[in-house]
Amino acid sequence: MRLAKMHVTPIALGDPPLLNAAGLHAPYALRTVVELVTEDGISGLAEVPGSLSVDALLNEARSVVLGADPLNWHALKARLETYFQPESSAARGDAPWDQRKVVQVFSALDVACLDIAGKAFGVPVATLLGGVVREKVPYSAYLFYKYEGAGGVLEFGTDPNAKGWDAARQRPALDADGIVDQARAMVAEFGFRSLKLKGGVFEPEIEVQSLRALRSAFGPEVPIRYDPNALWTVETAIRYGKELEDVLEYFEDPVRGQQAMAEVRRSVKLPFATNMCTTSFADLPGSVLSHSEDIILTDHHYWGGLHSSMELAAFCRSFARGISMHSNNHAGISMAAMTHLGAAMPNLSYALDTHYPWQWEEIIIGGRLPIEDGCVSLPKGPGLGVELDRPALARAHESYLRCGLAERDDQVEMRKKVPEWTFKATRW
Amino acid sequence: MRLAKMHVTPIALGDPPLLNAAGLHAPYALRTVVELVTEDGISGLAEVPGSLSVDALLNEARSVVLGADPLNWHALKARLETYFQPESSAARGDAPWDQRKVVQVFSALDVACLDIAGKAFGVPVATLLGGVVREKVPYSAYLFYKYEGAGGVLEFGTDPNAKGWDAARQRPALDADGIVDQARAMVAEFGFRSLKLKGGVFEPEIEVQSLRALRSAFGPEVPIRYDPNALWTVETAIRYGKELEDVLEYFEDPVRGQQAMAEVRRSVKLPFATNMCTTSFADLPGSVLSHSEDIILTDHHYWGGLHSSMELAAFCRSFARGISMHSNNHAGISMAAMTHLGAAMPNLSYALDTHYPWQWEEIIIGGRLPIEDGCVSLPKGPGLGVELDRPALARAHESYLRCGLAERDDQVEMRKKVPEWTFKATRW
Repeated sequence: MRLAKMHVTPIALGDPPLLNAAGLHAPYALRTVVELVTEDGISGLAEVPGSLSVDALLNEARSVVLGADPLNWHALKARLETYFQPESSAARGDAPWDQRKVVQVFSALDVACLDIAGKAFGVPVATLLGGVVREKVPYSAYLFYKYEGAGGVLEFGTDPNAKGWDAARQRPALDADGIVDQARAMVAEFGFRSLKLKGGVFEPEIEVQSLRALRSAFGPEVPIRYDPNALWTVETAIRYGKELEDVLEYFEDPVRGQQAMAEVRRSVKLPFATNMCTTSFADLPGSVLSHSEDIILTDHHYWGGLHSSMELAAFCRSFARGISMHSNNHAGISMAAMTHLGAAMPNLSYALDTHYPWQWEEIIIGGRLPIEDGCVSLPKGPGLGVELDRPALARAHESYLRCGLAERDDQVEMRKKVPEWTFKATRW
Repeated sequence: MRLAKMHVTPIALGDPPLLNAAGLHAPYALRTVVELVTEDGISGLAEVPGSLSVDALLNEARSVVLGADPLNWHALKARLETYFQPESSAARGDAPWDQRKVVQVFSALDVACLDIAGKAFGVPVATLLGGVVREKVPYSAYLFYKYEGAGGVLEFGTDPNAKGWDAARQRPALDADGIVDQARAMVAEFGFRSLKLKGGVFEPEIEVQSLRALRSAFGPEVPIRYDPNALWTVETAIRYGKELEDVLEYFEDPVRGQQAMAEVRRSVKLPFATNMCTTSFADLPGSVLSHSEDIILTDHHYWGGLHSSMELAAFCRSFARGISMHSNNHAGISMAAMTHLGAAMPNLSYALDTHYPWQWEEIIIGGRLPIEDGCVSLPKGPGLGVELDRPALARAHESYLRCGLAERDDQVEMRKKVPEWTFKATRW
């Protein structure tokens, strides 16, 4: 089997004004859709965070990809490793999301090849990852401080006729009451059984109030995780970490780097999670030596694909690390890939993160994948089990062209609201 | 897809009187052939070291296996993990070969399920392990001190009409000249490009002489590895290790346990390999903390199968360990499985060990897999690419019944030659 075509399509999906350590989400979240097509016409899909520079690398990879056997990932990967300069761990950068690019190229190609293999063999991608251990994959309610507005074509405006979660998605959430209101609406709509607050937006005291309010509103049976995206000092993290010992399921990246994480972890009786200090296979020895975290949040977009994420899961099993999943904004192709991974990981220990409820547009046939009782069911059908809605893809590509965004830059967006605002790697 | 039948067939294959740290090989090497058959009649094969107690566990596993989906290994594995008590690392024991049993059950089922999946999908097992990175998998010439005789029906006698390697296989090798003679015959027959001497038989001085003789005979372009099977003290290992710094490709298990290995490794400028101190996923944290070895010798029979061995390979990549493969006596089903694994491991860094040249009987259609230029070519055809020769299997089962052996016990065999001989975990 040989790959004959490779399509790289940047898209933009409406995204609300969500606040985070790096600033503010733009009115559109960028994604790139990759489609590989075999000589026999079997099509494989993947989706990665949108970026002009990643798109350029994907287009560059085409010369390696065309003619390759999509059933033979190790051989294609070896050729890609020869072609692309490997990135250092440090290339991840200080932002909440990973700045590395080559890993995303690997991820897109691995996922699309697995989609093709699943279709060729008539089995789900999860089967090719070793087998399905759960048909329903649990996700967590991802709560954000936010300004008023829905994003996208409404340009941070609101739709006065919206109801339920659609209405809540547009409302502001700038304090504890707003976060509890958002959580109630999201849980009512999707049935999530755990909550995650994206922090690093306000002073620690204020964010801790929101967490306490969530605990009061939902009770101890609903686990809460919290992520200040490494903006805190070790002292701040220990102080507020101790305060949160009776509140959190786990504490995600309060501080920056494995050594600082290890230091905080020794002082605070909570499990620590990361998608910032241990983010590549090259980081694993440091993780073992420092014991920087208890839970690694994989993200197949940044760990080089689904095969690699399964390798990470195996590491976690041997080294007594829990495993869960990080998320950026994404559409249904990534949702399907994440769900296949979650279905196949024997040691999945926590509900996965997903931004999915924050979007309303979709590029797959049948529209948005349902989240019921907090879970996404493994899509039926071979491969990823999702197919491109080509008119919807064309519209999303139109949005991309129209919105003029090329790289995610939350500081630029934030300055439209707070002109002096500047990202700080350590803020409190 | 559902599993409908499971056949467990113990067999015995003639084996020469090979010497090792545990004593002497019996006239027959025991193996157990496992065959799974789906409702649709697709058959999957595997082979594990023969043992009455492992056979009993395999037969016990039947209740879990029948009705399971062979395409969904993770689900079957999870049910097996619930059913069988996990074994501790210590259960490995002091013998050169691993004493654990449950891992072999897992291995047999994983391999047989992969064989079925490959046949169902029309692809080689190596494809299902991530893809083929090499079609020809390199093996090493496995040299043994031995008494005269061929083993098997000849009961340690000799066939005076034998030629070439068949004749050399029967000759004694009890000193440096004998080992060089054996190596020349084996290399002439199979084209091996690296040599391995099984040690732990004679005093270190004598075995070092053999290694030096091999180096003189073959020159520095033929790598030599050496394995005293952990019979040495730290002092002995450091002393002779230093002497061998200019002779060996790697030094395998000179001493027992990760701490002792680490101590020797710090003093001797050689790569250290193991299949004795780091033999399970539970041992990996200790391996990282002590840096007990440079190379882990996987053996899919003891690491729980091919999927697990790929997970080990991923660990080795992240933690700067080389990877190669350990071998016991085996027939063609294991040879095929080992070759698929070797074909799929991107980071295979050394030729694999195999006892295959020491056997002459075979249980697969077409007879023995050829070793050419030191390599075994990935078998053609889907799955493992080998099929049972049922008359040959029946003959090998007859040999099993007739020989009366139930568990490998090299001490019992050795005492037939040297009545007072007793295994010592540390001898020199």
